[in-house]
Amino acid sequence: MNIAIVGSGNVASHLNRALKPKAAVSLVNPHSLEGLPENVDVVIIAVADDAIAEVASLIPDSGALVVHTSGSVPIETLAPFFSKYGVLYPLQTFSKDIRLQYDEIPVFLEASSEETLSILKQTASLFTSHIRNADSYTRKILHLSAVFACNFANALIGIGYDILKENGIEGEVLQPLLSQTFMKLMTMQPEQAQTGPALRGDRRVIQSHLDILENQPELAEIYRLISDIIYRKKHLLK
Amino acid sequence: MNIAIVGSGNVASHLNRALKPKAAVSLVNPHSLEGLPENVDVVIIAVADDAIAEVASLIPDSGALVVHTSGSVPIETLAPFFSKYGVLYPLQTFSKDIRLQYDEIPVFLEASSEETLSILKQTASLFTSHIRNADSYTRKILHLSAVFACNFANALIGIGYDILKENGIEGEVLQPLLSQTFMKLMTMQPEQAQTGPALRGDRRVIQSHLDILENQPELAEIYRLISDIIYRKKHLLK
Repeated sequence: MNIAIVGSGNVASHLNRALKPKAAVSLVNPHSLEGLPENVDVVIIAVADDAIAEVASLIPDSGALVVHTSGSVPIETLAPFFSKYGVLYPLQTFSKDIRLQYDEIPVFLEASSEETLSILKQTASLFTSHIRNADSYTRKILHLSAVFACNFANALIGIGYDILKENGIEGEVLQPLLSQTFMKLMTMQPEQAQTGPALRGDRRVIQSHLDILENQPELAEIYRLISDIIYRKKHLLK
Repeated sequence: MNIAIVGSGNVASHLNRALKPKAAVSLVNPHSLEGLPENVDVVIIAVADDAIAEVASLIPDSGALVVHTSGSVPIETLAPFFSKYGVLYPLQTFSKDIRLQYDEIPVFLEASSEETLSILKQTASLFTSHIRNADSYTRKILHLSAVFACNFANALIGIGYDILKENGIEGEVLQPLLSQTFMKLMTMQPEQAQTGPALRGDRRVIQSHLDILENQPELAEIYRLISDIIYRKKHLLK
């Protein structure tokens, strides 16, 4: 299979690494489109959400299947430009210098026709066996859940690091705790894994933490909101 | 060394497992105090924060070192009851059925005197080499940072699961993403590991996520607050 990946970011470089062992892959500069072969079976546009339509408008419709990789951009964005189009959405966070087990990445597909979907499935199956269909709304839901579970969880861990640093302690002291927090989620649901003062409804501890956050009203508000959710979820008052 | 652990919860049972290979350990029922030996060197009170003072009041002062394990209870709570007292605070989350690498747990110590601290260090060094001193305020800071990095991160991952479940998708599809989110934090700071629409300042995606959360105002508020923090941290306007 001949595949062109248009993009220069983390998703593009990881898809390149994932597909290289199984296909003829060209990595194409998204600005100049230099290196875009004339005969390709699949073009993967792996650029920022806002740039997808513009990059698509520059790619000639050669009859190849053209897909984007975004959780939040509807499939219709590609409709004006190509006869065969679709979406290949990997539910994963990509960082340049971090290795990934590509065959474990869940990939969600949407395509302009049954025939197109079949080509797209073949493409995805070159690197993963976790393949499902998902329409544009479901993809948005997947992305939203990933924002909470990955982006926001990481941000709260960052707040934990900040609180330590402000008090002269290096954030890395949290690593064994993070490791355990993560390990638990490989064998239990987050609800079962939950611990802490909010779960126990320990108002004295909660208040003493809010006192420390007195001069950081946004952190105090986040503390209150998440503690409420933890407590109510346990007590089924939700 | 003769050690009595007073408690029946997760911390008590893990400390029992951690210390058993290196000391004579008795696990003591916190209600009846049945099984508390007369000759012990160290008594570890591992009960809920609110119960520490009451349990302490029931333990006779035999001259043994008596410590609690709480991040949020001041050392002074034990002062009325014992001549030698202290705190042994393990920065970790304890769940009954999950195994732990005890020698990786950072433990923070506080004691009523230099002599007491020396006994406490000996005790902690039976299972870990990550031993530091921390006064009651520093311990509270450590606990607060752990609430954000562990309890709250877990709760947000739970919200991610919930959003999927409400749409008929099992939360486990997030596991490869969680795995990667965690792996990154073993080699980089949370700030370097951060990704997502908030970091990119992608208002279109953020708005479409807030639209989905329209009927869950608390989740929308959490979304807004954390997105603001992520964006501002990157742009140094904090």
